[in-house]
Amino acid sequence: MIQELDPRMSRRKDLLDIESLTRDELLFLLDTARPFKELFTRSVKKVPALRGKTVLNLFFEPSTRTRASFEIAAKRLSADVTNLSIAQSSVVKGESILDTIETMQSMKVDYMVVRHSASGVPAFVAKHTPAAVINAGDGHHAHPTQALLDTFTMQEAVGDLRGRKVLIVGDILHSRVCRSVSTAAHKLGMEVGVFAPATLIPNGRPDYMKVFTDFGAALAWQPDFVYLLRLQLERQAAHFFPSLREYHNIFGLTRERFQICSDQGMYIMHPGPVNRGVELVDEVLTYARCLINQQVENGIAARMAVLYWLQPATTVLPMEEDAIA
Amino acid sequence: MIQELDPRMSRRKDLLDIESLTRDELLFLLDTARPFKELFTRSVKKVPALRGKTVLNLFFEPSTRTRASFEIAAKRLSADVTNLSIAQSSVVKGESILDTIETMQSMKVDYMVVRHSASGVPAFVAKHTPAAVINAGDGHHAHPTQALLDTFTMQEAVGDLRGRKVLIVGDILHSRVCRSVSTAAHKLGMEVGVFAPATLIPNGRPDYMKVFTDFGAALAWQPDFVYLLRLQLERQAAHFFPSLREYHNIFGLTRERFQICSDQGMYIMHPGPVNRGVELVDEVLTYARCLINQQVENGIAARMAVLYWLQPATTVLPMEEDAIA
Amino acid sequence: MIQELDPRMSRRKDLLDIESLTRDELLFLLDTARPFKELFTRSVKKVPALRGKTVLNLFFEPSTRTRASFEIAAKRLSADVTNLSIAQSSVVKGESILDTIETMQSMKVDYMVVRHSASGVPAFVAKHTPAAVINAGDGHHAHPTQALLDTFTMQEAVGDLRGRKVLIVGDILHSRVCRSVSTAAHKLGMEVGVFAPATLIPNGRPDYMKVFTDFGAALAWQPDFVYLLRLQLERQAAHFFPSLREYHNIFGLTRERFQICSDQGMYIMHPGPVNRGVELVDEVLTYARCLINQQVENGIAARMAVLYWLQPATTVLPMEEDAIA
Repeated sequence: MIQELDPRMSRRKDLLDIESLTRDELLFLLDTARPFKELFTRSVKKVPALRGKTVLNLFFEPSTRTRASFEIAAKRLSADVTNLSIAQSSVVKGESILDTIETMQSMKVDYMVVRHSASGVPAFVAKHTPAAVINAGDGHHAHPTQALLDTFTMQEAVGDLRGRKVLIVGDILHSRVCRSVSTAAHKLGMEVGVFAPATLIPNGRPDYMKVFTDFGAALAWQPDFVYLLRLQLERQAAHFFPSLREYHNIFGLTRERFQICSDQGMYIMHPGPVNRGVELVDEVLTYARCLINQQVENGIAARMAVLYWLQPATTVLPMEEDAIA
Repeated sequence: MIQELDPRMSRRKDLLDIESLTRDELLFLLDTARPFKELFTRSVKKVPALRGKTVLNLFFEPSTRTRASFEIAAKRLSADVTNLSIAQSSVVKGESILDTIETMQSMKVDYMVVRHSASGVPAFVAKHTPAAVINAGDGHHAHPTQALLDTFTMQEAVGDLRGRKVLIVGDILHSRVCRSVSTAAHKLGMEVGVFAPATLIPNGRPDYMKVFTDFGAALAWQPDFVYLLRLQLERQAAHFFPSLREYHNIFGLTRERFQICSDQGMYIMHPGPVNRGVELVDEVLTYARCLINQQVENGIAARMAVLYWLQPATTVLPMEEDAIA
Repeated sequence: MIQELDPRMSRRKDLLDIESLTRDELLFLLDTARPFKELFTRSVKKVPALRGKTVLNLFFEPSTRTRASFEIAAKRLSADVTNLSIAQSSVVKGESILDTIETMQSMKVDYMVVRHSASGVPAFVAKHTPAAVINAGDGHHAHPTQALLDTFTMQEAVGDLRGRKVLIVGDILHSRVCRSVSTAAHKLGMEVGVFAPATLIPNGRPDYMKVFTDFGAALAWQPDFVYLLRLQLERQAAHFFPSLREYHNIFGLTRERFQICSDQGMYIMHPGPVNRGVELVDEVLTYARCLINQQVENGIAARMAVLYWLQPATTVLPMEEDAIA
């Protein structure tokens, strides 16, 4: 079922962002995720592709869900997984990130899944280790596996994405999810719109990004997908936003706006976890075209595809038959 | 060694409490635990029964020991295990339990082991997921695997439990352990007595439960098993009980009471971990008929039996031969 | 590749310190680590030696790195690993260490890796469990796997260690690393020197230990290896040491002292993680004869050798063919 890798598709060492992937590579990863997802309908949800490999989940920023998703993905490929949650304070105290990486690299791990609150840390790590590095979210920069699972989910819903429209709603300026999703959508031929108040629209945004400053006008643009970004509650606490109630009124899928979406058959997406009553009203979650749970499921398949595709730069000798005691 | 499941014993999706099990199912689970326990005397303590299955330990209430017991049980069945310890505060903050469950379900886990401080959460989870759900303790409600391991341990000590007597001592009113153990004991034909001060005896208790309000009278009843409940120190802190010293004097197995137990050859049990000098004096722990360590060992075997027996409702296709890359 | 254990080398149940190992056993463990290290250059970094065995990482003192090293080592031997991080406060509260051990032993784990801030705890554990116990660091007492990986690393650098010199620098008095490394080095025929201020030199030190109270004189002794102990920052906080700056001036490998080391081709070692600018200046880390990363890599191999060699005292019956369901 899991086919051999397409020999014309050369493998990369790292997945750091969506920008560096070609359109063909993107499509290839989505194609590779599909048989992995089929695997989940079987009794034995496991393939031996990464047997004997070590995957390190190196999370400098806490994330139960993303960590679990990578962990389950790696185990379904038969890899051994070690989780390291490193409080950033302890890194700051006596040990630089580079020292941490070198320590972990010395343990000869094959894959490092890195999340950090500062942009650029996974790229820095990738430069200093032969292990394959996957960016699991860095600062405001990128979250490429999120974009893969999202476009995979969109493909499942409507097939070919060319000419389709996605509207991204929320704090565009600070969102690594928005950056990665919009880039992937554009590469796959979609039209990309964003809705945010003028103060949260980035200046150096790409030309293809259509900006709406009115939610009604954005919906009148008739997107196929309405993608609600998650409100980072800690940013709210820092008064970047007014109250949660006001956030809901400005950015939220209120009952009225949801009515428009469902009347037009728009799909609703959200990277999770949802703040109910903030980004959306509860009834969205039982809407037939709400794709939020599919996104989570597809997260495992997309991450399996990435782990399967990447190629650590570690020198490996062929396995000797008598190597096993 | 691990026999096929008895074809006449249909499988259930969830284990939420003892009440919903028939006597035959209870006996069947105890019979199934036995060969798993024998497995622990072997060099390779592992069977492939759950290979390719994912077990999620979803603990909303911290518990090192119970979590470790389920983790080891699942790994000895060759399942892949992912631990999620979720602080209840974070659930309260922005994400309902249902959303958490749906997220985890979307990852297509096969089994969810759920502990929560609120009664009914595992049942709620079970309704919303095709995964098999095991209640690992919910509020004051139930702790069914504890009751299984306890009655398994009693069986090992004396064989057939019919007509045997168990005395449960402590805060009967608030104990999920008491509720599950007493129900299982009753279903297996035992006489059940409880000792607690009048204020901690539940009003709606079952008719079969014999109530003692004097420890001496309870021991004169000549139970085969004296089951000491654990004092929940946090309840003590909330002044439900007087001082630890006074708790020991009222509920504890003091030197004098222990003398009576050992003179009569009574077995001593406790769900662990013991508060030494509170529920019992130290010498109990070296008493030949103290079963506390057997209870822990049997916890693994009983939990393996439960995992082996339950049947997730997920649709599974037969494994294709060529599914393995 | 992984050879059979030398039949003339009888196996031990525990590894608690270096003192109790014979020179032959030490050399045997170093020889055994070598093929495990070669394994890391292969595609499948795994052997089935400990399949079906359970390894428990029982850490009463937090240590991300050492825990990860043991976890990866055990998984590369195909063991199942369960991590338990037990806050010492919770142990103190209601449960003695012995009760914790008995609980874990009742789960029939085969190996316990124990770290504790109090000297003697792993030995105490070893007496009370048939599981094989590995001391992963206890108080000021011992850290034997550190000594194994260190002498293994020295062997890789220079071959036979007889007649070679190692200089250990830092808080000799309170260092379990120093105690274990110096003992191993001596058993392997090395000369051992230490540099520390007079107040941090132990009174009951062994005769073979050459004491320097001047760093310059210590380097003039021309050691092959300069081994920098890690400053325990919490000790610094307790004012055992003056400021970090002053520590660096007294104990640190300053630019000037490093110049002497590199001119003479001395190897630099450190148990990690390094406090940059405290025990050493940054340029040491890129020095060709800085062995710090090799030490980490060799930690996995050395711990695999120990797990492979030790023999739990649990009674095991031969595996029956029909034991697998």
